[in-house]
Amino acid sequence: MQSIEKTVGLSMEDAEAAVRGALAEQGFGVLTEIDMAATLKAKLGVERAPMKILGACNPTLANQALQLDEQFSLLLPCNVVLAAVEGGTRISAVDPRALMSGPEFDALAEDAAARLTAALERVAGTAG
Amino acid sequence: MQSIEKTVGLSMEDAEAAVRGALAEQGFGVLTEIDMAATLKAKLGVERAPMKILGACNPTLANQALQLDEQFSLLLPCNVVLAAVEGGTRISAVDPRALMSGPEFDALAEDAAARLTAALERVAGTAG
Repeated sequence: MQSIEKTVGLSMEDAEAAVRGALAEQGFGVLTEIDMAATLKAKLGVERAPMKILGACNPTLANQALQLDEQFSLLLPCNVVLAAVEGGTRISAVDPRALMSGPEFDALAEDAAARLTAALERVAGTAG
Repeated sequence: MQSIEKTVGLSMEDAEAAVRGALAEQGFGVLTEIDMAATLKAKLGVERAPMKILGACNPTLANQALQLDEQFSLLLPCNVVLAAVEGGTRISAVDPRALMSGPEFDALAEDAAARLTAALERVAGTAG
């Protein structure tokens, strides 16, 4: 799975706050949030390292994509995943270029990928 | 985008209730919910036909997938989209076989696809 990734020396909480701020600067709101570790603990009794999935959406880009093809709704929102790792938090964003296929989506996918990359670089730069 | 799809002669509300019930029978909980039409209206002032994105997750299958590869979190949860169409509601689920690649995921993807297909067929059967 192609992804955009940075590991930072921040706690999950601090990384999440930084990610939300950096995504907002790039026009992405966080529409959904899943605490995967808590969900698996509650449903299956499984213990695992903290993991949280944020569903980020840039309304302008999403609207353009839906106008091109309603089926694009199957790929919304963009996942940005926070996972506790040794010494900090790994932040991974789905790479929109891996999900959107067809020349009509190329410009949108490039734009979204550039924005997600900028957001993660901003977090890594602030934390570094 | 490969999807599993059924169109039923139900309102969005009735279709959503039926979908949630059928997903539950297949072990999927709905972890997230985005009213896409309301979001685009609020953020951009765009008017569009009703569309809702449900994020469905079968904890057992998700846990198995994450144990194989943590990056699978980028593809969770499975989207099930309700869209108002002429005479009813179109229900589309992302086809897990289109997202998961690699032989280690084949059995999981087949299982998830079979369950989502059964859920949509159940809704279509009840509504028909």
